[in-house]
This record gives sequence, C-alpha cells and structure tokens, in this order.
Amino acid sequence: MTTPLRVAMVGHAFMGAAHSHAWRTAPRFFDLPLAPELAVVVGRDADRAAAAADRLGWAASATDWREVITRDDVDLVDVCTPGDTHAEIAIAALEAGKHVLCEKPLANSVAEAEAMADAAARAAERGVFAMVGFTYRRVPAIALARQLVADGRIGQVRHVRAAYLQDWIADPQAPMSWRLEADKAGSGALGDIGAHVVDLTQHILGEQITGVAATLETFVKERPLPSAAGSLSGTAGEGTGTVTVDDAALFLARFSGGALATFEATRFALGRKNAIRIEVNGSAGSLAFDFEDMNTLHFFDGADPDETAGFRRIVVTEPGHPYVGHWWPAGHGLGYEHGFTHQVVDLVGALAAGEQPTPSFADGLAVQRVLDTVQRSSAAGSAWTPVTL
Amino acid sequence: MTTPLRVAMVGHAFMGAAHSHAWRTAPRFFDLPLAPELAVVVGRDADRAAAAADRLGWAASATDWREVITRDDVDLVDVCTPGDTHAEIAIAALEAGKHVLCEKPLANSVAEAEAMADAAARAAERGVFAMVGFTYRRVPAIALARQLVADGRIGQVRHVRAAYLQDWIADPQAPMSWRLEADKAGSGALGDIGAHVVDLTQHILGEQITGVAATLETFVKERPLPSAAGSLSGTAGEGTGTVTVDDAALFLARFSGGALATFEATRFALGRKNAIRIEVNGSAGSLAFDFEDMNTLHFFDGADPDETAGFRRIVVTEPGHPYVGHWWPAGHGLGYEHGFTHQVVDLVGALAAGEQPTPSFADGLAVQRVLDTVQRSSAAGSAWTPVTL
Amino acid sequence: MTTPLRVAMVGHAFMGAAHSHAWRTAPRFFDLPLAPELAVVVGRDADRAAAAADRLGWAASATDWREVITRDDVDLVDVCTPGDTHAEIAIAALEAGKHVLCEKPLANSVAEAEAMADAAARAAERGVFAMVGFTYRRVPAIALARQLVADGRIGQVRHVRAAYLQDWIADPQAPMSWRLEADKAGSGALGDIGAHVVDLTQHILGEQITGVAATLETFVKERPLPSAAGSLSGTAGEGTGTVTVDDAALFLARFSGGALATFEATRFALGRKNAIRIEVNGSAGSLAFDFEDMNTLHFFDGADPDETAGFRRIVVTEPGHPYVGHWWPAGHGLGYEHGFTHQVVDLVGALAAGEQPTPSFADGLAVQRVLDTVQRSSAAGSAWTPVTL
Amino acid sequence: MTTPLRVAMVGHAFMGAAHSHAWRTAPRFFDLPLAPELAVVVGRDADRAAAAADRLGWAASATDWREVITRDDVDLVDVCTPGDTHAEIAIAALEAGKHVLCEKPLANSVAEAEAMADAAARAAERGVFAMVGFTYRRVPAIALARQLVADGRIGQVRHVRAAYLQDWIADPQAPMSWRLEADKAGSGALGDIGAHVVDLTQHILGEQITGVAATLETFVKERPLPSAAGSLSGTAGEGTGTVTVDDAALFLARFSGGALATFEATRFALGRKNAIRIEVNGSAGSLAFDFEDMNTLHFFDGADPDETAGFRRIVVTEPGHPYVGHWWPAGHGLGYEHGFTHQVVDLVGALAAGEQPTPSFADGLAVQRVLDTVQRSSAAGSAWTPVTL
Repeated sequence: MTTPLRVAMVGHAFMGAAHSHAWRTAPRFFDLPLAPELAVVVGRDADRAAAAADRLGWAASATDWREVITRDDVDLVDVCTPGDTHAEIAIAALEAGKHVLCEKPLANSVAEAEAMADAAARAAERGVFAMVGFTYRRVPAIALARQLVADGRIGQVRHVRAAYLQDWIADPQAPMSWRLEADKAGSGALGDIGAHVVDLTQHILGEQITGVAATLETFVKERPLPSAAGSLSGTAGEGTGTVTVDDAALFLARFSGGALATFEATRFALGRKNAIRIEVNGSAGSLAFDFEDMNTLHFFDGADPDETAGFRRIVVTEPGHPYVGHWWPAGHGLGYEHGFTHQVVDLVGALAAGEQPTPSFADGLAVQRVLDTVQRSSAAGSAWTPVTL
Repeated sequence: MTTPLRVAMVGHAFMGAAHSHAWRTAPRFFDLPLAPELAVVVGRDADRAAAAADRLGWAASATDWREVITRDDVDLVDVCTPGDTHAEIAIAALEAGKHVLCEKPLANSVAEAEAMADAAARAAERGVFAMVGFTYRRVPAIALARQLVADGRIGQVRHVRAAYLQDWIADPQAPMSWRLEADKAGSGALGDIGAHVVDLTQHILGEQITGVAATLETFVKERPLPSAAGSLSGTAGEGTGTVTVDDAALFLARFSGGALATFEATRFALGRKNAIRIEVNGSAGSLAFDFEDMNTLHFFDGADPDETAGFRRIVVTEPGHPYVGHWWPAGHGLGYEHGFTHQVVDLVGALAAGEQPTPSFADGLAVQRVLDTVQRSSAAGSAWTPVTL
Repeated sequence: MTTPLRVAMVGHAFMGAAHSHAWRTAPRFFDLPLAPELAVVVGRDADRAAAAADRLGWAASATDWREVITRDDVDLVDVCTPGDTHAEIAIAALEAGKHVLCEKPLANSVAEAEAMADAAARAAERGVFAMVGFTYRRVPAIALARQLVADGRIGQVRHVRAAYLQDWIADPQAPMSWRLEADKAGSGALGDIGAHVVDLTQHILGEQITGVAATLETFVKERPLPSAAGSLSGTAGEGTGTVTVDDAALFLARFSGGALATFEATRFALGRKNAIRIEVNGSAGSLAFDFEDMNTLHFFDGADPDETAGFRRIVVTEPGHPYVGHWWPAGHGLGYEHGFTHQVVDLVGALAAGEQPTPSFADGLAVQRVLDTVQRSSAAGSAWTPVTL
Repeated sequence: MTTPLRVAMVGHAFMGAAHSHAWRTAPRFFDLPLAPELAVVVGRDADRAAAAADRLGWAASATDWREVITRDDVDLVDVCTPGDTHAEIAIAALEAGKHVLCEKPLANSVAEAEAMADAAARAAERGVFAMVGFTYRRVPAIALARQLVADGRIGQVRHVRAAYLQDWIADPQAPMSWRLEADKAGSGALGDIGAHVVDLTQHILGEQITGVAATLETFVKERPLPSAAGSLSGTAGEGTGTVTVDDAALFLARFSGGALATFEATRFALGRKNAIRIEVNGSAGSLAFDFEDMNTLHFFDGADPDETAGFRRIVVTEPGHPYVGHWWPAGHGLGYEHGFTHQVVDLVGALAAGEQPTPSFADGLAVQRVLDTVQRSSAAGSAWTPVTL
C-alpha cells in the first residue's frame, strides 16, 4: 500500500483548478511513490469553498488556512492564492512542518521572497521541502530544450531572445482587475508573465541573469471599473480606476555564461494570446520554441552539413522525450495542464526520495531578484544594473 | 443531487485509459446533467483487470462482460475492445437496456455494423442510445470547421483533401501485431485511421461520400514476430508472420454535394506521427487543419479583399470556440485526450435530454460502408464504385 | 571571344517575357560557354511584335515564324506559343537544323508529342537538340530534392503526394479564355498545371508513372465571354461560352519503383494561388516542398535519433545548393523567374558540350502519355489504366 | 523617344552586381519615364573594372571616379563602394550636378552623414536629387505593411520587435574581413544590418526613434587573417587580426508615437542566414514579417470577430499589391534582387517628375543618428539616450 501524501490547497480559482486536475491525474498516468490525497481545499467563503471541493474533487473544505496548516492529517500545503499572501502562508506552513508547493511568482517583493527562501532552507534541514510552481519547465519541449543545452548540443550560448506576449488588455476599455493593482499583484506583465520567461531561460541555460537594462510602460493608465467581481474577461462598468502596474516590460540582459538577451513581456500584443517564445543561439546549435505550438521544438544542429542543415521541427511526442512516454503514442499532443501534472510527478518523486524538488524557493528568489533589478533599472533611466546574487 | 450514470467499461488498454480519463475529468470542468460513476471495468484476466481498476479509477473490476451488462447497477456500457468483438458486446448491452459508447471503427464488416445499427435503432425506440467514438469530431478546431461550413462561410464545397499519415511500421523490421492481422483488425490503415478521416470529412461537410476509386497496398508482407506480447512499439523476435491487412489506402471520392476528394491513410509516411490533415475548398472560403498543430484552424475568407486576404491562423482557444470556454484562458492549448472528455460531455448531455447522441451507430455504419466500398473498388482495379446508402 | 548563340523566340506573352528575361540575365550571373543573342522575336501582329522586341530586349521582330526558322543567322528557336502550335513550329525548326526550346506541355496530344519526339531524335543524330521547358525542375529546392533522392537519402520511396492548386476561376463569373477551350489548350488544369507535377515527381524520383486511376471534373460548364481580348484576369462581358476542358484532375498513380501517389490539379482551390506541393516518403527519409515558400525544402532524415528527429526546414540559399552560388549570399531568396534563367544556363551548357539537354522531348512525351492515360482512365470510370511506355 | 538617364556606377562588388541587374531589368518590366543607360562602371583596377563592365552590362569602364562624375554624358552617379568613401564621392557628384544613388549605410559617422544631407539639400534646390539605398523598403510585403499602417489598419502602435539575424561569423575561425574593421566599416552588425531594421521600422511606422538603451558586444575579438583577399566566405590563413567592430547590437527603443521596441542585429544567430524580422502590434491590428519568407506578410485584423480572427498569411503576389502587377501572375514569388529593381523604378519616376526620391539623404542621416545614439548609450552603460533630431 502506497504511503499517502495528504494535500491541503489554499485558493481555488484558475490555478486551483489546474492544480486539482494535476493532483487527481498524476497517479493515473505515472507510478508515484506516494499517493496524493486531495484532503482539503481552503477558501475565504465557506459556500464557495465547499462548492469548489465538490467540483474539483477535494474531500473537504475549510475557511481558515491557519488552522488547516497545523492539522496532523495534512502533509503538504499547495498555495494557489494571489502573490501578496504567498509569504505568510508558505512560511507558516513550512514552520508547521508541511511541505509547500507555492504558485509563482514566489512573492511580490524581494524581501518577502528572501524570507521565504530562508524559511525553506531551514525547513529543508528538517526534511521539509518547498517548491515554486514554474510549471512551464515541465512542458516536454522545454524540458527537451534544457536537455539539449546540458548535452552540449548548443555549445557556447551567444544569444537568447525571450518574449511572453498576450493581448487581453490591448483594448483600453478592458476593465480594471486585481492584476492591475500594484499592492495586490506586485507588478504587471513583468511579474505575471515576465517571471515565466526569466525562469525558463535561466532553467534552459542552467545559468543566471547577471544584469539588465530595462524599461517599463503603462500604456493605459485609467480603465473602467468592472461591472462585477472581475475576471480576466470582465466587462466594463461605471467609473474608472488607476492602473498601478506595468502593461509591458522590456529589457536587455546578460547571462552568467556571457550570452546577451532581449526580453519582452506585454499584454498589448494584439493577436498573440499566450505566446511564450524562446530562442537560443549557440556556437554549436540553436533552439526555438513558441507555446502557441507547444508540442514542437525547433532545433538547428550546427554539425549538419550546410546543404542539409535546417531547423528541425521536432514533434515532442516520442516515447523517449521527457514525460511523454507516460501518455499517448507518438504524435498525440499534450495540452497546457500537463505541465501541472508533471510538476506533481516530480514533486512527489523528490519528497519520497527526501530530496529538494526544483525549482526551489531559492530559484524563485533568483527570479524575483531579476524582476526587482528590472524595476530598478527602469527607474534609473534604463542604466545597466547588476543583479544581486 | 445529480442522478448518477453508472458506467461499465469493457477493455482497458490504450482506449480504456483515454476513456477513463474522460469519465473522471468531464464533471470537473463541465456541468453535467448526470454524474458519471466509474462503476466497473471488465477484462479477461482478473489480476490485470483489478490493477486497471486501481490505476484508472474504477470502483470494481470483473472478467465476464456478459454478466456485467445485465447488472441493475450499470447504466452504460463503454466498449473499448478490438473491433472484432464490438458487435457482440454492443448488441447484447443494448438488448439488456444499457446505453452504449463503442469505440471506432464500429465493426470489422458492414454486416456487423448493420446489425449494430439495427440494434441501436430498436433500442432508441425504448430510450436506450448508442454512440460510436469518433472523438476527433470533438477537437475544437474540427468542431469550428464544421460550424464554418454550416454557417455558409465556405460556400459550395469543391475540393476535399484528407490524409491520415503515420510511420510506425515504415521500418520493415517493425514486428507483427494484432493490428496487422485481418481477422482481428478487419483492415489495416484503412479501418484504423482512414475511418477517422472518412468520418471527419463527412461530419465537417454534413454530407456523405457517394463513390470512390481506390487502391490498397501492403508494402511489407512478412514481418518478424514480436519478442513478447506486442504493442505498437514492440521489438522483433524470432520467426515471421504474414501481414494480411493494408499498409496504405488511397482513394478518390465524391461527396453528395458534388465535391471531389483525395484520401490517403498510411503507416509508411516517415516522419509523420499522427498527421490528420483535412483541407476543404469552397466557393466562398477554404479550411485547412493538421492534427500535428491541433489547436489551430486555417481559414481563408473569400470575402476579404485580395490585398488583405490570406489564410487566417485561428488559434482555437477563445472562450467562444466550441468546448474551449470550460478550460483555460485564451492561448492555453488542449491536448489529444480532451476530445474524449468532450465526447463524454456530449454523450451525457444527450442521454439526460433523452436524445440520440452523435455520431450514432448509423453514422458509424455509413463510415463502414465507405471503407467497404474502398476495398471493393481496390479489388475491382480501382473502378469507380458507388457507396450503397 | 565567346561563340554566339543566336536565338529566335516565337510568341511574346507571359512565357515570352519570362524567357526573354532569362536570355538577358543568364550570362550576367553565370559563365556561359556560348553567348546568347536575342536576335529576333516573332509575333503575328507586326506592331505588337515590334513593341515586344523593344520592351523585352530583342534586336529585331518578325511576323512569319516559317521564314525566321530558316535564317542562317538563327541558331535556336524558342517556342513560347500556345500548345496547339508547338508541334508544327518545333518540328519545322528542328528540320531546319535549329536547336529548339519548347514550352510545356510539349503538345496537346500524344500523337503530336510522338511526332515531336521523333523529330528530336532524328535531329539529335545531326547534333541538333531539343528541350522542353519544365522550368520548375530548376528551382533550387526541387533540384536539391532530386539530389537527395539520387544520393539515397530517402531510400525506397513508398509515397508521393503531389498537388498543383490555383484558384483563378473559382469564381463562376470568371470569364472564358483560350485556356478553357479544348481545341486550343488540349486540356484544362490537367495539362496546364498537372503536367508540371507529373514531370516534377518523375524527375525527383528518377522514375516513371506506370498506371493511374483518374477522374476529371468541370465544375462550371458555362462562363461569361470576356469583355475584351482575355487574359488570366479578364473581366466578364456579355453572352456565355462553354468550357470544354477540365477544371480539376485527380488521380492515383503508381511509380515504376512501386511507390503509390495521389495527384491533384485544380483551379478551384480558393486561397491557393500557385501552390505546387510535393511530398515524398521513403524508407530512409522524407521530403516536402511547397512553391508558396519556394526557397525552402523540408527534409526528414530517418537516420536521426527519434529524440532529435524532425523535418528540417532547409533554406535553399547556401553556396553549395544547386545554382545558388551564382546569385546572392546565403539567406537571400530567389524568385519565380530564376528557374527560367537556370534553364538557359543548362541548355547552353549542353549545347556547347554537344550533349542532349534535359528534359528532352522524350521526357515531354512521357508526361504527355501520363496525361493521356489520366484522360482515358477518367473516361473509363476511373479504372486503373497502365501508361504505355 | 524616351529621354535617357546616363548612369555611372562606382564599385562593382556584391552591391554593384545587384544595382546593375536593377538598371538593366527595370525598363523591361515597368514603363519608365526616363531610359536608364548603363554608361560607365568605375573601379580602382582597370582590368577588373573592364571585366565588370563586360559581365554586368556597362558600356564602358574607368578607374577615376573624380573624372567620371564631371563628365557631361553622365546624369546620375550610383555609389556602391564601402561606407568610408560614400561622403566624398556622393558630395562631389552632387556638387558636379549629378543625381546620386548611394548605398546604405549613408556614411560611417554622423558628421559625414550630416555633410551629405547638407549637400543633398543644396543640390535639391537646383533640381539635383540624392537617394540612399535602403532597398528592403521595396520588398512588396514591406511596402504593404507600411500601407496598412498608413491606412489605420494597425491603429495606435504599441510594440515593435525587430531583429536582423545572420550567422556568417558564428564560427570563431571565420577569418577577418574589412567588415570587421572599424575604420573601414564604421561599425559591425549595427551599421551593416541593424541600419536596415532601423530604417524599415521607421519607414513602416512613419515615425522616428526618439531614444534608445543599448549594448554592443564583440564575442570573438581575435580572428585568423584570411588566406587571400577576403570575401564573406573567405578561408582562414596564418596570423590573427583584431576585430574592432561589434558582433551584435541589442537595444530598446521608443518611437515618436509612443511605441516601445526591441532591436537586435547579430552575425551569431546560428542557423539564421538573413532573417529580417519585424513585428508591429497596434490597438487595431498587428503585422509580422520575416525575410526568410519574403513574399508573405502576416496581418492580424482586430476587427475580425474573436472566433474567426487569426494572423492572415497574405501571399503578397496579387496584382493589387505594391509593384507586383508588373511581374508574374498571383502566387509566383519574387526574390531578393527585385527590391533593387523597384528602387530604380521609384528613383527614375521621382527624377522625371522633378521630385525628391525617398529615402532621402536626410532619411539616411536619421538612421545614422539612431546608430550613433546606440553606440553612445552602450558606452554609457546602456543609459537611455535621446536621439538628436
């Protein structure tokens, strides 16, 4: 009988649905060394939490996360709340001896992220582990990209170009939401989506960003208030609110191995819905990825003779590709939520082995420091600003 | 409290895993009028069936499908066995008053398919319904394609080109499997994958194929026997077996509305893993789809001025697209198995409404008749052969 | 001083412009062993011929091709007239001892083509050579495709899929033109564009088509007469005319090496302007080409490990690619007319060497026989019909 | 009889071949109001100049450009020499009363470019005109992009991302060339290829870049000397030389209308041969272009309903597209050199009309100022630096 891993999830919106699906699904396709139990979901409103438990498959619901994280029958706390609450919940859970999976971005500030990383380091000494949810790392094509870099197939990396393009507020009449308020969201496109491409490129290269020159912009500074409790696709109501976060973040960067990079995160790229684009050029090969075609990785092998060289469109659905062998036959693509399932697989595997799962809170802090440096460079007239490591 | 829909699934291999996932997942993302219960899974070997129940999330397992389909606590029988057993199981289940979901192809012969369609018609009079599992109909891009045709955006259809390209036996040393034996599989590429593009094109156009000129081919007639119980990716053992099905099927066809078509189904298209390609050209617009990029539909609108006309790459992940609004925000793609979940959603909806779900067994029979006509035309030196309607 | 090659061109419409450009341009980018001289252009109307000479760069103009082809100061006759005049002009020129370059299709019937091939064979014995203008052979990506097949990189060819898709008469109101009249054009889409993909696939494989099962269709049988002397893009006038050629031709085919093929030629593929698509799947590799992206060839190398295999998008602009080194640096694409220039280069090279240029009239006849077989199969209810070799 | 335009071309390497082709070809496909005559080509070495005249179609050759530009029988001087000589030749020619076409970049420094723009302004008062050769403006897809912006189809522009990616010195063993020496080339990737995307984006938007934050990098600082007089593809010899220009230039920029941009120019993007990529996102639409597929423009129309919206792949070969109607029927793509031919067409048209052709030397100066600002920002630690207008 497999030892259970009893999970409490705090928050049950978009991310809560994705995490729940992953907890339910991982053991159906992978052999897990621990058996996840969807023990309890926590939400501020009792009725909505109960409905979420029913809908998402949790055995129980609760309203007080502080109480839940001290329960003896909870092994892991899965934090799916907005960023301004991450630090308090995650630290408390770690101190209560619970493993923690925390959604990204790790926190809304470097100070919070540092406190979280410290708490995680202390907990790790007691065999209690924390992980931050940069799930795109577990898209098979991304995992393959990292592998090709690690195997030396790209050589010395010279260039990275990374962009995360969305368009959901390109219309100036799109209404306000908590994601447009600095005190709740920390930052705008930078932390919400820029964080992903910072983490992904650092992950693929196995390197750190060491400095940036940046500029942030808020194109639309006043927006209509939403007509009702807002979602990504809310409708406009009466009155206006002030946008206090960036609409777009652009920066140049250098990686620890010497590569130069352009980064862009925006919610104003009309026609691009969730285009996570990463290109890497090295002395031996090149890579290109776009999440709009997420089951594909383009790879140029510099060792091919010129006459037959070209970017290979690798359909990343072969049994030998990362994670893929547990799903369907070759050519049957995966979707967005599979990254969350793979995250559960890797997390559970690490916990069972008593090892630190990745990305750790220290990795999350590293991303946070880059985001902070971007903000400081932008405030300093785009001056090149080193990332404090 | 939602009325339950108690499901018994017969067979638990590749398709069983996909169906189980769908039964588990559909109620988590969609509001279903009946609550599916994964009651019992049936397999010939008791231990393997029990393991499958555990793995796939079924409450119980059994070895005798005849016994299971008569149980009072079963409402629907989901047939996931090889094609040579479909008729017997499905007809018995219908006669026992159970709804039936049967994997494609409906049967291995027209005679069997006719018997099944007859049984389904009789059952429908008693409010018991049957559906055949052409799940690709529920890929959102395919559903959108059908909708555009139905809305008149394509106009009078002139041309269809359809291909289903795989390469898993392109290597002559790939070993034998039941899929290469006519008595078990009925036909080869024709019934396994050709059936899908026949159904999809008829579905998208809302028309029937009325005649074909065909040729079938078996490129590799002797193959090594597998070293052990074979799978798609088995390894070669000692001795050889004779391939008694087609490796490839090619045919010209005409649709009831006058359109001309080329069809191709093959397992020898090296480098193409699961490329379901469908193109439609009409007097008002054109469509193009390739399952290798399954979240995308290409649409040419003949009403656009020449200077700004071009195939539109529609990323079919908008809230207004079929099925999509129940999943993730725009730009977050779905995968292969979502079609199965959508199939459950539509099936459950129809059953709750007391309506015939589609595709019906009559639709499955219509496909079978086309496949049969293809075989007869090929045997008759490719002579144009009308489909008996 | 390089020996001159004095050219007389008969006809000066679309093809005449392309040929003239090629004669002018070839010696500017390639070292030619003979120096082409644009001696005289022939047209029925003296004024229009004179204007064409001026416009296209010919030293003189004339109205009587019979007179021109006997002149001592003409070495080569370039036939750019409609297909119904090819045989008479080409045979007369060969008998007058002139080399001949004749546009495709070689003729409007097999009988004419046979007479031309006979005349060419007789002339060749006297060192006088004939070539037919299947210029797409000289698109660098196509030439590379042939080379990869010849080098064994594709292995045993299993599948070919070829389509030539246009849409210029998809609108039923597009007016009549000589290309829609059987007595002038011979056939419709079949001979005009289908001939190209027949030749290209035979050329790339180095094989012959041995049999076909075909169907021809005329979707729009009556069209408005043009308001004035028609061109491809004429406007409709009063009255209607009867279309006596095919709008579309579809056929299955088998190559001499055993490969199976689908072929389609149509002028009704809305949104496709000049899409020449050729795919080849073999036991060792696969190829894909589309003239809409003419500087690119997609190549799948079966020797690559599964994990890094994928269709390589070869940008065919490297110095080592066929013809390319004479033009621009890598990455600077060529256009449609470069094929004509390469044709001149290869023709002049062969003539200087006293060798038969390719494609010969015999090659053109081979294409004509396939087209004829397609028509006979279509007339015979698509029955499989062998090509007389 | 059309008035002649007698051209003297200085320099006859890569650019000289392209310009010669354009002068020869433009009057064959377009109705020009002046008749270009390829009067004389100038080179330092008499024999090589004579050979070039013969090869490229010039009536005569000469070695002293100072003498040639004063000849009465020369109307226009076409400057195709390296950048360090542009100012001297162009200014002298203008002062001698000759029209000037000068290759890009206009000069190697702002000071030189200012002197040239001044000279051009003075000459224009006398009806003598100067043009700088940013030929990519005349690629039809680029011209269409500009037109769509001007027509308001893109709306308020928010984002531009521009990259010019090559790989010809990605190999550290690629030898030295004059393009890697600052005193001859002025700068490296920045001026050679970055200049093009600066000009193209300013041209498409109809706006100026107002400020930048930049970083330049030389990845490989010592390279082998070439074995012989070097070309782009020279081979390495003995000894090494020091690279004194940038290998890559990256910068953020803002346009006068408020749009934010990332720019990248590099010769180290392995696998990218001549990838000029430009994307524009506005409030009403978006555009995307890549020179690797130069006959295509991707256009997203924000006015399309969400369900049928998508980037339209416009094949820019319709008769109504810029320049295209003079060439071939729809679907027959153009190549790299057509931009040069279109440049001649527009230049001759402007001269005949007594109007200033574009891009003017003032436009070239504007580009030079951006490049200079990039260098200053890079030297100032990437600090945001305004462009002096």
